[in-house]
Amino acid sequence: MQDVPELVAQAREGRPRAVARLISLVEGASPQLREVMAALAPLAGRAYVVGLTGSPGVGKSTSTSALVTAYRRAGKRVAVLAVDPSSPFSGGALLGDRVRMSEHASDPGVYIRSMATRGHLGGLARAAPQAIRVLDAAGCDVIVVETVGVGQSEVEIASQADTSVVLLAPGMGDGIQAAKAGILEIGDVYVVNKADRDGADATVRELNHMLGLGESRGPGDWRPPIVKTVAARGEGIDEVVEALEKHRAWMEEHDVLTRRRVSRAAREVEAIAVTALRTRIADLHGDRRLTALAERIVAGGLDPYAAADELVAGITGGG
Amino acid sequence: MQDVPELVAQAREGRPRAVARLISLVEGASPQLREVMAALAPLAGRAYVVGLTGSPGVGKSTSTSALVTAYRRAGKRVAVLAVDPSSPFSGGALLGDRVRMSEHASDPGVYIRSMATRGHLGGLARAAPQAIRVLDAAGCDVIVVETVGVGQSEVEIASQADTSVVLLAPGMGDGIQAAKAGILEIGDVYVVNKADRDGADATVRELNHMLGLGESRGPGDWRPPIVKTVAARGEGIDEVVEALEKHRAWMEEHDVLTRRRVSRAAREVEAIAVTALRTRIADLHGDRRLTALAERIVAGGLDPYAAADELVAGITGGG
Repeated sequence: MQDVPELVAQAREGRPRAVARLISLVEGASPQLREVMAALAPLAGRAYVVGLTGSPGVGKSTSTSALVTAYRRAGKRVAVLAVDPSSPFSGGALLGDRVRMSEHASDPGVYIRSMATRGHLGGLARAAPQAIRVLDAAGCDVIVVETVGVGQSEVEIASQADTSVVLLAPGMGDGIQAAKAGILEIGDVYVVNKADRDGADATVRELNHMLGLGESRGPGDWRPPIVKTVAARGEGIDEVVEALEKHRAWMEEHDVLTRRRVSRAAREVEAIAVTALRTRIADLHGDRRLTALAERIVAGGLDPYAAADELVAGITGGG
Repeated sequence: MQDVPELVAQAREGRPRAVARLISLVEGASPQLREVMAALAPLAGRAYVVGLTGSPGVGKSTSTSALVTAYRRAGKRVAVLAVDPSSPFSGGALLGDRVRMSEHASDPGVYIRSMATRGHLGGLARAAPQAIRVLDAAGCDVIVVETVGVGQSEVEIASQADTSVVLLAPGMGDGIQAAKAGILEIGDVYVVNKADRDGADATVRELNHMLGLGESRGPGDWRPPIVKTVAARGEGIDEVVEALEKHRAWMEEHDVLTRRRVSRAAREVEAIAVTALRTRIADLHGDRRLTALAERIVAGGLDPYAAADELVAGITGGG
C-alpha cells in the first residue's frame, strides 16, 4: 500500500513520480482510490482546465506543445493530459504524435500524461476527471486535455474542461465531420491551424457561417472567437492564449465557471453512483444470473424490461 | 392509449403504420413501453440483423439500398433502420442521403425507419435494440441497421447486429480513421465500395494487412472476407449477400449466433436496469440534492466518491 498523504505532499512539491503514482491509483479501481480522492478534495479547484479537440491531422499535438511553451513563458505550471483512442492497430502513429511533445519532457514545470483507451472510451471518460483532480491538487496552474474529436465520448471528455478549444485545418472537409460529431456545439474558442495553407480563409468563413446558425446570442453572451494559427511556427498562439484568458474572465464575471464546475461534478457523482450500482448488480446476481435472464429473452420467454425489474428489485430490496 | 395486441397483429400483417406506432411507443418513454415489450417477446428472435457502418461518403445508403434490392429479389421481407447522428447543422445533407432509398418507398415488403439522434447517441443506443425487436416481431426476415461509423456509440449500435459489415472506400484515409474508431475490430465482413476508383486494390491490401495484425485465428475461426463493390451499379452486391449468408451459417454451426444474442440481451437488460436506478436516484434526491453535493465538491469540502456513496445509500436502504 502507498502512503497517500506522503504521495500527495510530494506531488504538491512537483515531483513527477508522485503525480504519476497518484494518477495510476485513481485511473484503475485501486483499493486506495477513495483514500486518494478524499485527500485531494480540499486541494483541488485551482487549476484552469483547457480542452483541446479536433480531427486527426489538424495539428493537435503541435498546438498543445505551442500552448505549453506560451504558458511556461508566463511562468505557469502546466500539465497535458493526452487522451488517445488508440486501438491495437494505430499505436505507432499516435506514439509519433507524442514525440512532438518531447521538447517539454525535461522541463520540471510541465507534466505530460497519455491516457490510452484501447477501445474503452467509457472507462476513460470516468478516469479523466479523476486524473484532472490529481493534476489540479498537485498545483498545476493550467491543465490541457487533448482529445481526438470524433465521437460522443471525446466530446464528453472535452466537456471536463473549463474552456473548450476546437481545432480545425483548411481543406480537410472538417465542416461536415465536425458538425456530425457535434463539436461545433461545444467550442468556446475555435482555432483554424495551418492557416498558411490554401483555403484557410474559406474555413474561417464556413465556420463563422455555421456558428451563426446556432441559437441567437444576447448582449452578455459569449461569442466564440475564431483564431488563425500556424502552430508549427508558433504563429497566432499568443492570440489563442489571449482568447482563453478572455473566456476565463467572461466566465468568472458571469458566474459561469462555478456553474460549469458544479454541473460537471454532479455528472461525475452520478456516473460514480451508477457504476457502484452496476457493480452491486453484478455482485448480487453474478454473471450467471444475468446470462440466465438473457437466455430466457432470446428464447422468447421474457422481455428485457421485466428482466431488468428482477435485477433492480434485488438491490433496492423489493419493488 | 393504443390497443397493443391489435397493433402487434397489424404489424405482423405487414402494415407499416402499425410498425411505426410500435416503434414510436418503444423509442420514447411511453407508459405503454412495457406492455409492448412483453407482447413482442414471444414473437422476436427470427430476423437476421445486419449492421452496416462506415465513415461519411463511403456509400452507405447506396449500399444499403442495393442490399435491400438483392434481398427483395430473394423474396425476403426487409427493414432498414438508419441511425443518423445528425446535429442541427447537418440535417440537410442526411436528408439527401435518405432520398437514395426512395426506390424502395413504395414496396410493401420494405420498411424504412430513420432514427435521428440530435447529439444524444446514448439514448439512441438504448432505443435501437427495441426498434429492432419490433421489426423482428413484425416478421421482417432481414433488418439492416445503418450507422455512421465514427464513434464509440455507433460501434455499440453496430454491435446490435448478428453480422457487422464495415464499409470503406478507396483514397479516403479510412485506414487510420477506422482504426482509431475501433471499427476494424468489429467487422465480420468488409466491403470496399467504389471499387472502380483508383486505389481500390491498395485499400484492399491495406485492409488485409491491418486485419492480419489482429489476434491469430484458429482453424475454426471466422476470417472476415473483403468484398469489392460498386454499389451504385449493383456490382458485387450478390457477393456481399453470399458473404453474409456464409457468416450466418458459420455462426449457426459454431453456436455463435445464440451466444452473441444472449450477450447482447444481457447488456440490454443491464442498461435498462442501470437507467431505472439512475431514474430512482433522481426521483429520490431530486436535482437539488445532487447539485448541493456537487457544490460541496467544487468548494473542496467533499470528494465525488463520498458524494456518490450518499446517493447510493439512499436507494439501497443503507450502506
